[in-house]
Amino acid sequence: MNTSSVHIIAQQSSRAARQLSSASELIRNLALSKMADSLESIKNQVLDVNAQEVLEARKNGQSAAMIKRLAINEKVFQYMLSRLRKVAHRPDPLNRVLEGHTNPTGLRVYKKSVPLGVVGIIYESRPNVTTDAAGVCIKSGNAIILRGGSEALQTNTLLADAMIKGATDAGLPQHAIQIIRTPGHEAVGELLKMDEYVDVLIPRGGKGLIKRIAEGTRIPVIKHYDGICHLYIAEDADLKQAVDLAINSKCQSIQVCNALETLLVDEKCAEQLLPLLHLAFKSNNIELRGCEQTQKILQDILLATEEDWHTEYLAPILSIKIVNDIEKAIDHINHYGSGHTDGIVTKSLALAQVFEQQIDSASVLINASTRLSGGGDYGLGSVVGISTDKLHARGPVGPDELTTYKWVAYGNGHLRR
Amino acid sequence: MNTSSVHIIAQQSSRAARQLSSASELIRNLALSKMADSLESIKNQVLDVNAQEVLEARKNGQSAAMIKRLAINEKVFQYMLSRLRKVAHRPDPLNRVLEGHTNPTGLRVYKKSVPLGVVGIIYESRPNVTTDAAGVCIKSGNAIILRGGSEALQTNTLLADAMIKGATDAGLPQHAIQIIRTPGHEAVGELLKMDEYVDVLIPRGGKGLIKRIAEGTRIPVIKHYDGICHLYIAEDADLKQAVDLAINSKCQSIQVCNALETLLVDEKCAEQLLPLLHLAFKSNNIELRGCEQTQKILQDILLATEEDWHTEYLAPILSIKIVNDIEKAIDHINHYGSGHTDGIVTKSLALAQVFEQQIDSASVLINASTRLSGGGDYGLGSVVGISTDKLHARGPVGPDELTTYKWVAYGNGHLRR
Repeated sequence: MNTSSVHIIAQQSSRAARQLSSASELIRNLALSKMADSLESIKNQVLDVNAQEVLEARKNGQSAAMIKRLAINEKVFQYMLSRLRKVAHRPDPLNRVLEGHTNPTGLRVYKKSVPLGVVGIIYESRPNVTTDAAGVCIKSGNAIILRGGSEALQTNTLLADAMIKGATDAGLPQHAIQIIRTPGHEAVGELLKMDEYVDVLIPRGGKGLIKRIAEGTRIPVIKHYDGICHLYIAEDADLKQAVDLAINSKCQSIQVCNALETLLVDEKCAEQLLPLLHLAFKSNNIELRGCEQTQKILQDILLATEEDWHTEYLAPILSIKIVNDIEKAIDHINHYGSGHTDGIVTKSLALAQVFEQQIDSASVLINASTRLSGGGDYGLGSVVGISTDKLHARGPVGPDELTTYKWVAYGNGHLRR
Repeated sequence: MNTSSVHIIAQQSSRAARQLSSASELIRNLALSKMADSLESIKNQVLDVNAQEVLEARKNGQSAAMIKRLAINEKVFQYMLSRLRKVAHRPDPLNRVLEGHTNPTGLRVYKKSVPLGVVGIIYESRPNVTTDAAGVCIKSGNAIILRGGSEALQTNTLLADAMIKGATDAGLPQHAIQIIRTPGHEAVGELLKMDEYVDVLIPRGGKGLIKRIAEGTRIPVIKHYDGICHLYIAEDADLKQAVDLAINSKCQSIQVCNALETLLVDEKCAEQLLPLLHLAFKSNNIELRGCEQTQKILQDILLATEEDWHTEYLAPILSIKIVNDIEKAIDHINHYGSGHTDGIVTKSLALAQVFEQQIDSASVLINASTRLSGGGDYGLGSVVGISTDKLHARGPVGPDELTTYKWVAYGNGHLRR
């Protein structure tokens, strides 16, 4: 792929975006449904091509985790289809009147949601990003430029082509969905320069990828950094519920951004609770590291260092700290956390409300597993990522988060006096 | 000012922000009203100190435009007070439930608006930014760090101190409002490094200032770049209305971001309209520059070059282009415009709607002067600037735009299955 072909893609997307911004809800939803139908009709081909790429990745000695992310089986495929069809049934994110009024001179003003324009998605291995991201972008009237990992290129291209067919069948412009078809870093480098045409970039993958992209472009980037997630167990917590929530938050899936990394235990329930937690985590093969006070109760665990509190393990390791009270827990979370997802276990309404108010994170959970933060349980349907930014999108990035707004004013020759 | 004092200010603001985020609407509105009262009580002192700084600026050979921006007279002072009092009466931007639902397992989820945290305002000469920005920030529960131009330092410090007194009298934390008191670039440089404490920077001033800040920091910046504003006169426009709107858009105030810079005239009404416009602009001492076709009708004007279409004059110059139809007008605006404010003059509902839909700008005006885009006529009350970004804030930046949101979920031991 030479530089000019990425340039052409970006230009084409920009033109498509203008047409797309006027596409009715009916057409966009029809497109999503036809995209799913079109994918369904090539299911066997997708599974075959993907199996081939999985084989290749194994041959190249890729990690088991990476291969798991790459592989599409029947269940994953059906899930991809269902997400596309589900997003079609969501409310329209566009042309919502967000506010408005008529000013004293009769100027009628309103603020309405409109697409961002062109969204570039740069992602590693997971081919389900291809369909999820296209679904969210088409729903929100944005043109999308896909750029997946080279190990999944054949699968992604096949998925994209089927979706392009479905979208154009429904009457969307030809370049509403595009995929950069050639491997190599050069094409990504070119894409980063397309600030004239691309309105936002969303990188999906490791911290290194996100950092490289955020620092290498003038295009705004919706970032998805660390998930250093906490659960604070207040003194009045139900012990069984506390253990269940801690285990589920940590163990339901280890390598995900909303998995628990640090457990904070109120000193007033620590002696009773820690041995129970110890037992439960042990049987789940989780290594515990604790503060000095924790070590006094659980003598066989390692001491957690300053670095531990800053670490997103994404591994079967959990750090535990005993805190004096909720204020200390909040201090710890706001200082060491990444503003992703943090929870409290308590029976007290007052404690729940203080926690809700003072924790400065995208998701604040009360008596619920940290694993429940995300587009699914929040009712957004498909998302293209989880933002750890505070501006624009915070938390799950669904169709609404891929809109901006414009102010529209209707006058009758209104002048400024 | 040494580096550590800016660091201390940023830390103090960050702590104040946490307290502020829990301050009730009542307290925040009381603070705004007490801030205005406190300012009112030192009116004469403010006018004296400001007059001294104006004198100084004149002595230093500052431009008339700059001195105009710097000066506070009785009218400006009353306007500053009224803006603070007005913002107190606006609806609360915080704790709005933006969406929510209960998921099938009974997890209760909602998304609510919360302050961004610490807002840094870096601005040139205009002391009214000091009060406007503080008003918008306190309304939205954000701690503010002010950093104005050195030529207005005494005025700004006086204003800030009075507001700090008012705010603390109402019970807000001592560091909710802070001002960096020492002149010199070094302090700004330090502020740009405070990404651990400062959540967003809003530069107010020339393009150079904004660019320097956006490129010199990892803190998110709400940018306010060019206002290359257009008015398109459709073939069916009422001629008198068209002339009045063009004149008002260009001449009501020349050096402002929503002043007209390029006029697009439909070729079907150009021959009739251009001579009228020519006359009207001439009597307002505006220099016209036109495309070749325009020159055929108005023979005594200069040819507009490619550069003219890209230029925000902020001066008594206007470029004029004849276009074939609305599509060409939209193409021109989306290509050369800065996405700030663009208008159409037409009697046709269909044309108005196409324009509304396809112009990719923060403000789209139908039969209204471009000068009407802004917080005042849009009903926002005070604003801290007008964003030309598409992400987060677009257009006027009022209290709502200085909020982010968090997702809150209440469960009852809910686990992820």
